[in-house]
Amino acid sequence: MSNTNILYQHGTLALLVPGLLDGTLTMDELLKHGDTGIGTGEGLDGELIILDGTPYQLDGDGKINILDGNFTMPFANSHFADYAEMMEVENIAREDLQSQIKEAANSDNTFFSIKITGTFKNMTTRAVRKSSSPYDSLSKTAEKQNMFNKDQVTGTLISYHSPTLFDGAAVSGFHSHFLSDDHNFGGHILNFDTVSGVVSFQQFDTLEQHLPTNNKEYMNHDFSKDNIIDDVHNAEG
Amino acid sequence: MSNTNILYQHGTLALLVPGLLDGTLTMDELLKHGDTGIGTGEGLDGELIILDGTPYQLDGDGKINILDGNFTMPFANSHFADYAEMMEVENIAREDLQSQIKEAANSDNTFFSIKITGTFKNMTTRAVRKSSSPYDSLSKTAEKQNMFNKDQVTGTLISYHSPTLFDGAAVSGFHSHFLSDDHNFGGHILNFDTVSGVVSFQQFDTLEQHLPTNNKEYMNHDFSKDNIIDDVHNAEG
Repeated sequence: MSNTNILYQHGTLALLVPGLLDGTLTMDELLKHGDTGIGTGEGLDGELIILDGTPYQLDGDGKINILDGNFTMPFANSHFADYAEMMEVENIAREDLQSQIKEAANSDNTFFSIKITGTFKNMTTRAVRKSSSPYDSLSKTAEKQNMFNKDQVTGTLISYHSPTLFDGAAVSGFHSHFLSDDHNFGGHILNFDTVSGVVSFQQFDTLEQHLPTNNKEYMNHDFSKDNIIDDVHNAEG
Repeated sequence: MSNTNILYQHGTLALLVPGLLDGTLTMDELLKHGDTGIGTGEGLDGELIILDGTPYQLDGDGKINILDGNFTMPFANSHFADYAEMMEVENIAREDLQSQIKEAANSDNTFFSIKITGTFKNMTTRAVRKSSSPYDSLSKTAEKQNMFNKDQVTGTLISYHSPTLFDGAAVSGFHSHFLSDDHNFGGHILNFDTVSGVVSFQQFDTLEQHLPTNNKEYMNHDFSKDNIIDDVHNAEG
């Protein structure tokens, strides 16, 4: 039944901006739509990455936890992995890698995922500390993020690339999370210097965009007053 | 297997702006995702409406045709009908009706459909005349539209309402097509004065956004130079 052409998304990045951070989807439900993914928990509870059907969280203290099926999220992506090897890279700088991937993918106008397994130099990640209802806006909550750094780390990067047209629903450009092989380091990638490893690619022709229509705060919110695009890029960029 | 919570969309309104008008989905495929819908044919070949699984076209000459399964489209929506009656109206003006629907629906932040069966006064519709490859931009092609008017007409209106966040992918606000009961009049609704009849409502929690990834012109187009939002609203408003 799994369709590897579909990227599933619950919630939108825009709903994080005014602080609509209720958990509106369970991990059990998210895993029905994929064995690979990224997301965040209720109240921006850490940075999530799903690898081979197992959901991991880097929490605000820098600890890696395995999540259970009742864990809830305001925003997440998942898909069924069917990556094809795109290239092997050796000490390539992050910006050069992104240009090479964009050129090889030739998929700016659709959604795709990149998986990189390899060794990264000087990686910086962040994880947000969970806040409680009533939630602050994304820009305020993001001030409570912790940053983590590793000089040399081996692990797996999962990234989604979204077309500019869907900016605000998704993050246009790349949105990347990481987990180290030793499960001691991970999170939302802010930067790394270089990477050596294998880059794999999976293109989608469908975005299955699921919205939290049972959540009153979401349904009653007036988004016209939010500075969505700027705030999303400041916090997620 | 049908899920009445899903609105299926093939293509985006944005791709019409620069004239990416190849037919990239067949009617047979569209009907797998719904028995109700709207759209346009390759080269902006008329205005389509699907009612109870039958696809009708108002062509540029004002003629209603029933389409076969091989007919192709650059942009279309469909869903499986499961409308609930929302209200009965009597000689209500179009703007008042839209406000009443928006208030009763309370669904600005998700996708929904409205179906109206009734008698409309002074309805004006348009249908675009099919153009051939290489296609003109939407604003140029729209100059070739024909307008049609009926003083009093009984039939069915199908409308989709999309959240502002998805403006450019879809038309934010209402996008409405019409077919008269006698199959002599229809098209993309530009205006009507009043309507008497029954208004029904169906809310979706999922947009299944399918993109024409097999179409080279789409995949290679640089959308950053298009004035998408303005042109879409000028042409579709």
